[in-house]
Amino acid sequence: MDADTGLPVVGMIGAGQLARMTHQAVIPLGMSLRVLAASADDGAARVAADVEVGDHTDLGALRSFAADCDVVTFDHEHVPQEHIAALIADGATVHPGPDALRYAQDKRAMREEIARLGLPSPRWTPISTEADLAEFGVPCVVKTTRGGYDGKGVFVIEDVSDAAELLASGVDLIAEELVRLRRELAVSIARTPSGSTVVYPVVETVQSGGICTEVIAPAPNASPALIERARHIATTIADAVGVTGVMTVELFETADGLLVNELAMRPHNSGHWTIEGAITSQFEQHVRAILDYPLGSVETTAPVTVMANVLGGDSPIPPDERLRRLMSHDPAAKVHLYGKAERPGRKIGHVTVRGDTIDNAFARARTAAAILRDGIDTTTKEAT
Amino acid sequence: MDADTGLPVVGMIGAGQLARMTHQAVIPLGMSLRVLAASADDGAARVAADVEVGDHTDLGALRSFAADCDVVTFDHEHVPQEHIAALIADGATVHPGPDALRYAQDKRAMREEIARLGLPSPRWTPISTEADLAEFGVPCVVKTTRGGYDGKGVFVIEDVSDAAELLASGVDLIAEELVRLRRELAVSIARTPSGSTVVYPVVETVQSGGICTEVIAPAPNASPALIERARHIATTIADAVGVTGVMTVELFETADGLLVNELAMRPHNSGHWTIEGAITSQFEQHVRAILDYPLGSVETTAPVTVMANVLGGDSPIPPDERLRRLMSHDPAAKVHLYGKAERPGRKIGHVTVRGDTIDNAFARARTAAAILRDGIDTTTKEAT
Repeated sequence: MDADTGLPVVGMIGAGQLARMTHQAVIPLGMSLRVLAASADDGAARVAADVEVGDHTDLGALRSFAADCDVVTFDHEHVPQEHIAALIADGATVHPGPDALRYAQDKRAMREEIARLGLPSPRWTPISTEADLAEFGVPCVVKTTRGGYDGKGVFVIEDVSDAAELLASGVDLIAEELVRLRRELAVSIARTPSGSTVVYPVVETVQSGGICTEVIAPAPNASPALIERARHIATTIADAVGVTGVMTVELFETADGLLVNELAMRPHNSGHWTIEGAITSQFEQHVRAILDYPLGSVETTAPVTVMANVLGGDSPIPPDERLRRLMSHDPAAKVHLYGKAERPGRKIGHVTVRGDTIDNAFARARTAAAILRDGIDTTTKEAT
Repeated sequence: MDADTGLPVVGMIGAGQLARMTHQAVIPLGMSLRVLAASADDGAARVAADVEVGDHTDLGALRSFAADCDVVTFDHEHVPQEHIAALIADGATVHPGPDALRYAQDKRAMREEIARLGLPSPRWTPISTEADLAEFGVPCVVKTTRGGYDGKGVFVIEDVSDAAELLASGVDLIAEELVRLRRELAVSIARTPSGSTVVYPVVETVQSGGICTEVIAPAPNASPALIERARHIATTIADAVGVTGVMTVELFETADGLLVNELAMRPHNSGHWTIEGAITSQFEQHVRAILDYPLGSVETTAPVTVMANVLGGDSPIPPDERLRRLMSHDPAAKVHLYGKAERPGRKIGHVTVRGDTIDNAFARARTAAAILRDGIDTTTKEAT
């Protein structure tokens, strides 16, 4: 507990944009996020008062960090399992715990658990040789079981020989069928250590090249049965694996129903819309959940909310001028910049637009993101 | 400019709750508020990365602080005029400037300016003797021209002799008529150095003992003519005195129309509702204005938003438990705690509730504030 405020100290390992937005969310709760940053330049380290710089694979650094926290949580999924177990053995409160986190760290373990729960996945199998891959059948998707995110560690394989180098590398791999999908959806659930849950509205995530470009909340044209099914999947997984905090289930919608794509055991890009679009943002909700506080309302604040990611580009127009141009173009667009150095393709921020109709909000959000990236409205060109 | 992000550095002198909420507002803009704090324990100093501890009356401290800022602004109105002039002479960009700030620092200068602009004030006069006061007439209100806020420096005088000590103290005083008012209103305007303005909806401020307890946005039962009059008053003052940033005009509504009560040249308690209740919060708007950025939308996000201040009490229930109880009682109430040590009567936070009807939102906000203060719902008792 903070001696002055009488409120708990929440620590987050990792200081990227999720930590940055979590710090923003805990300020109104009277708290200040304590962050373990890889570098003093990290997005959250630039804005938080209580920053320790250290390596998340260094148990000594983790122990020193955790000692001053009432609860420890994660900006990313890269902290080794054995280190988390060691912190818990020391007496630290860690959420999500290693059991739940395992399913976000290891895609094979996740697929096995989803199967055990009787929930649908794409057809999949572990592979270690070209013969395994040939037997499974190509074209297909090959994934490293660990370390993948944002399309990294995911490979579309047309021909068995395309996977030769990957197979020779010795990393653990699974093959998954190339799903004929209608679209991608996501559903986020928050669960407390006491077992309370709230489920956010199901959203549609628009992807391009393996990266989410826009999120539409709530998902348009989603039948009550589809929504109920998505909620059932999220609740079943959360209860079974003992999730604490926010978990997001990425889903494929196919002609035959929903398939589980990926799990994230933390606030997720598909939930950034909640900062403006829901009464309780996913970041505040995650903190409430890991503190075992009563969960917040997940009601929406507008008929439609659209979030568009801003990817780094190579614009000659300075960031300050791009920001001014967006503000001039759309005085109601909500900007979120992560304090990151810009590199082409790197997520450097997002924009959220609330509206009454999907088409209007989607076009505005996409245009806003383009102006922040390029300094001009490049969406008309893109659409052709 | 921050070398890594290419975005400006905004500095705020003072590190109270206004600075704390401004820091929260600039994080999404890719920035981090630089604050000059009187103490490392100040509300904003607890949550911001870039904090200098120094005295706002020490020109050396102000100069050192301002040197690293692209623009300097204020959490309070207590920086001496001559120091602000010195910073500007050094080449610093300071908003609001000393000309505008003067009218928030000096109530006599404000009353003279309001009169010069042909706008209505309560009847008033400068006083320095009991004879002056007797001539003006009692009962009346006597105010110190400088240093008053939240009811401090404001005295209701029933009998001339009641003011003897005050008159003998040698501070500059004005007397104002005791206005027979229907209610108090407030209107906030943001103005850029280029002269663009946006005006927020007129709100009703509910007062108790000289302290604002609740704000209802928009003000109920306000005729179009009343709203237009309030907007005219705000715009006239802002343009005439060259306001940069957010200015709030506190108004008395009387049978004969509106009277100007007070001016604040900064985000103001009566605008805290905008964090959730408007597309652009007053804190983001203030920063946009002082950076001469395009101003943001002032549209509301709900039919009614009610903000209730949380005053420190003497509850034996720990703050953490009170927060849990509120979250359990009302999952949609938005909490804002300022990271301050609790003292009876001190503003330690506020709660905001959005709703469809005034009665419901008002009751919920008042109950939420009571639970945060006392740990229990004491509003029923209070109302009797």
